[in-house]
Amino acid sequence: MKNFTYQVPTKFVFGRGAENEVGREIRALGGKKVLIHYGGGSAVRSGLIGRVQAALEAEGIAHVELGGVQPNPRDTLVYQGIELARREGVDFVLAVGGGSAIDSSKAIAHGICYDGDFWDFFCRKAQPERTTPFGVVLTMAAAGSESSNSCVITQASTLTKRGLSSELNRPKFAIMNPELAMTLPPYQIACGATDILAHIMERYFTCEKEVDLTDRLCEGAMQAVIRAARIAVRNPKDYDAQAQLMWGSTIAHNDTVGVGRVSDFGSHQIEHELSALYDVAHGAGLAVVFPAWMRYQMHKDVMRFAQFAVRVYRCDMDFEHPERTALAGIEAHEAFLKDIGMPITLKELGARTEDIPALAAKTKKTNLADQTTGGAFPMKTEDIEAILRIADR
Amino acid sequence: MKNFTYQVPTKFVFGRGAENEVGREIRALGGKKVLIHYGGGSAVRSGLIGRVQAALEAEGIAHVELGGVQPNPRDTLVYQGIELARREGVDFVLAVGGGSAIDSSKAIAHGICYDGDFWDFFCRKAQPERTTPFGVVLTMAAAGSESSNSCVITQASTLTKRGLSSELNRPKFAIMNPELAMTLPPYQIACGATDILAHIMERYFTCEKEVDLTDRLCEGAMQAVIRAARIAVRNPKDYDAQAQLMWGSTIAHNDTVGVGRVSDFGSHQIEHELSALYDVAHGAGLAVVFPAWMRYQMHKDVMRFAQFAVRVYRCDMDFEHPERTALAGIEAHEAFLKDIGMPITLKELGARTEDIPALAAKTKKTNLADQTTGGAFPMKTEDIEAILRIADR
Repeated sequence: MKNFTYQVPTKFVFGRGAENEVGREIRALGGKKVLIHYGGGSAVRSGLIGRVQAALEAEGIAHVELGGVQPNPRDTLVYQGIELARREGVDFVLAVGGGSAIDSSKAIAHGICYDGDFWDFFCRKAQPERTTPFGVVLTMAAAGSESSNSCVITQASTLTKRGLSSELNRPKFAIMNPELAMTLPPYQIACGATDILAHIMERYFTCEKEVDLTDRLCEGAMQAVIRAARIAVRNPKDYDAQAQLMWGSTIAHNDTVGVGRVSDFGSHQIEHELSALYDVAHGAGLAVVFPAWMRYQMHKDVMRFAQFAVRVYRCDMDFEHPERTALAGIEAHEAFLKDIGMPITLKELGARTEDIPALAAKTKKTNLADQTTGGAFPMKTEDIEAILRIADR
Repeated sequence: MKNFTYQVPTKFVFGRGAENEVGREIRALGGKKVLIHYGGGSAVRSGLIGRVQAALEAEGIAHVELGGVQPNPRDTLVYQGIELARREGVDFVLAVGGGSAIDSSKAIAHGICYDGDFWDFFCRKAQPERTTPFGVVLTMAAAGSESSNSCVITQASTLTKRGLSSELNRPKFAIMNPELAMTLPPYQIACGATDILAHIMERYFTCEKEVDLTDRLCEGAMQAVIRAARIAVRNPKDYDAQAQLMWGSTIAHNDTVGVGRVSDFGSHQIEHELSALYDVAHGAGLAVVFPAWMRYQMHKDVMRFAQFAVRVYRCDMDFEHPERTALAGIEAHEAFLKDIGMPITLKELGARTEDIPALAAKTKKTNLADQTTGGAFPMKTEDIEAILRIADR
């Protein structure tokens, strides 16, 4: 178990009707002029934006709105948000939506109080030193951005998708009403569940030894998310399944299940290239990359992959051939992904075989010293290419 | 799943040598004069207090000391601490020790800035509205007080043990070096592990339905704590086992595994009377009370107790007779407690049969409306008496 520092100061307000608390929460934090930042028109049509506005007005809080956040949120809208916020004297940013609205809001919040170009934070030219207070009304379970220290933005001109890790990325509050996810199409629920699982698996497949407690927290969380996802894609109105997914999304990515471990996040880096190039849903991209990554990496630690198979999918342990158990776990995971309607091949995703070398080459090298990608199972460009070729079946 | 609000702002600094960070953490919080509050001489003899003092002095932070905290910490020392802190102009309280030192420090921190008698907070005459910033250097895994919202103090003159729940009870930071627990006697390690498990079980045995995610987090945490406890009582120098126990103590009692559930804490109330009357270790008291409580309550929800048996102790499910599985789980838990050297009967604890009616009558009624004790499985005085008689074997 590794040494660690851990602090998640975000306040969670969870349950039916929670969005009605948003005015009180912002007033308690001293916010006077709020930028409400959201995605498509569904948040308006469903009446959610109206309820949020009413909750602010009930506390005497002024607001301006900026909609139009897309999946894989773009820098262009972030620039617009920063300009609008400065012009209007905004002192609090409120994301209403999922990971895209939240990440776009984080970037706006940091950008408001930075003299340079906010993209500096994403291309490592600068680290944010302060931010504008921001909060979240979550409408879907997926990215975990409602309390994670991460934020991912795509530069529209180059289709470069880059992440920023910073403690400043933790929202002041996250308001989480599982009912708000009930109107999502099953495909989007499935994408979200896949993202949640991927966040856990990026932590679970570690090279760190003696991490029994967090192993078991990861395994328990994965089992619950798998069970809830199967229910929610069939019946999006199932409150309890949506509730497990929504809280699951939070703990999957705020390190509740990941402290003291070496995490990997290589699959996330590969996926970032897929969704930047083809504009596919992040979860769908992960559904394709992760099983291929597992098939490629399992030989480096067969017993860990066997443990995944036995404890998460309750596969029988083959004590004579642990690699067969490891493989059975990957197959069970693929069967789950298919069951909830996810693609598991590049073809299903609409990706082209001829793009593979470029995708592999472009994948960000997270380890600068040896130019590899991934924390626990580092990959060179040729490893990434091999993984993409496994996915190209 | 119930609606909930959850916020744990405590910063955790975990791992080898973490105590050397204490000066930097307090300086970052603006502390200038620290009350170092601890228990017996072992913290002095081991050199820990000296290292803490050196870490403060390296940052130019002044300090005064107050040792002598006992297990089941007394109000008398709290009064002394409040007076000393006021006289010396203390602006930060630092607990060095386990749950007793931390709880005593919490009470002192609240008392410093309260004009009345701090006991008002424990007998429900007042709620604390502010406190003095305080932090923790943890030396044992048990109470979880390093980030919980609870605090328990015993009034020496009446031997009344009372708890205070308040968000103000969350420390600013918790410095957690598992090496510091390596010098504890195995009996104390076992008491700590029993307390950790009890904190999880008080949440696990719920009447709330559809709590699969937190069920599984509870089960995973229990399995890891059981495994680590068996190792640590045999070899207290096993860093990894101590590390699982130490982080386990934290997540067991800060609601990481308990959000959205109805918890019980009836066993804790019964135990408070045992340790107040006989001054036994809290963990040892829980080892006696909990199995008896389970034997008495299992009939009210056989399937939940069977789930505990199957998922935590890997008992075979008897589908025709689930109550046999439930009982097997309780027996497995008793066998575990015996294995780590805990008592499981009142006699082993030194308690007297003739005290049972008074113990039952004195147990705090947590539900004022119907004068019962416990959240999920409420007990009248006669239920408590029956449970104590089961423990009196």
